[in-house]
Amino acid sequence: MLTQHQTGAAAGTGSIIDARAQRSRATVLAAATELLESTGVGGFSVDEVARRSGVAKTTIYRHWPTREALVLDACAGLDDRYDLPDTGTLRGDVGAFVADLVHMVTRASWASVLPSIVDAAERNAAFADMHAQIQKGHASLIAQIAERAIGRGELPAGTDTALLASTVMGPVFYRRWFSREPLDAAFIDAVTDRAIRGVQGCD
Amino acid sequence: MLTQHQTGAAAGTGSIIDARAQRSRATVLAAATELLESTGVGGFSVDEVARRSGVAKTTIYRHWPTREALVLDACAGLDDRYDLPDTGTLRGDVGAFVADLVHMVTRASWASVLPSIVDAAERNAAFADMHAQIQKGHASLIAQIAERAIGRGELPAGTDTALLASTVMGPVFYRRWFSREPLDAAFIDAVTDRAIRGVQGCD
Repeated sequence: MLTQHQTGAAAGTGSIIDARAQRSRATVLAAATELLESTGVGGFSVDEVARRSGVAKTTIYRHWPTREALVLDACAGLDDRYDLPDTGTLRGDVGAFVADLVHMVTRASWASVLPSIVDAAERNAAFADMHAQIQKGHASLIAQIAERAIGRGELPAGTDTALLASTVMGPVFYRRWFSREPLDAAFIDAVTDRAIRGVQGCD
Repeated sequence: MLTQHQTGAAAGTGSIIDARAQRSRATVLAAATELLESTGVGGFSVDEVARRSGVAKTTIYRHWPTREALVLDACAGLDDRYDLPDTGTLRGDVGAFVADLVHMVTRASWASVLPSIVDAAERNAAFADMHAQIQKGHASLIAQIAERAIGRGELPAGTDTALLASTVMGPVFYRRWFSREPLDAAFIDAVTDRAIRGVQGCD
């Protein structure tokens, strides 16, 4: 906890309160994210976040007026971002993207939370909006990969990048959460090949 | 409620009790399925099933010893079966399958429950097993379509039907629950074309 002398005489009480509020907010968010990763959206309770963080419920509700607001904020903290590959070819870029996606869905903590977000989105507009934002982010990487390929002449202008996104991500998500078969190197190669063959037509 | 004279003198009290038990079981299952369709697995409670069905909780627990057992039984009642198409060609069969799948995910009541089943399966082996059974059923339709195509010489023997299933179902599920873009006729055609092109190679 910051003391007055640490903030400096000129700062005054306001900064101390702000800093403490930020610290407690960070503590709560960290506990909320950890809880989310272990129980998904359905098992999330503010009571449990208060217990794990050591921050009082009244304080939590001052920062987040509803349980939903806190869950959404914790979801925003899940690390679902990944790099835009730039290998120089369409096949290299798509292959790297699929490999990254497979890595994320098999190892990243958000992978176990995502089905509960999709479920919450079925009945709750705020979750539907948030999930849509996540998806737009992923799909925009595909669009950028396609744009570069178009620039290199590997793809025709006007390529349907939304469809490409569904043929790249669809099989990976299906195998991870539905058929639950191994997401191995052979699968990564096969999904990549078929997605490209699908969008390039035949050689 | 059956009376003794309706069951016949020879049947005795046993059959009346069995028939009543069956009737209350059916009533509970119907209420459970309806509840599942509106709240998903996460919102399911035996209290609410008791309220909706008018059957006492004690009676419910006699038939299903745990909440989980009742949810699983209600899930089994969701109509996720669809016909094996037989159009005479691979393209016709896959196209009909994709169209049926799109119809199911956009209109069938289980479509709103499925994400909650996938979520429950992340943490609960009984749900994972049940979900796996559902998926095997769908994938086996694809395998049968492929086998017939192999018989007709449209596909090579040893075609990877699990991969074919992921390229057929993956994009549909992705578009329904992730990107939430329209699942229109153009999309059905495009998914069908790409799945077939992916498995047949090029003409």
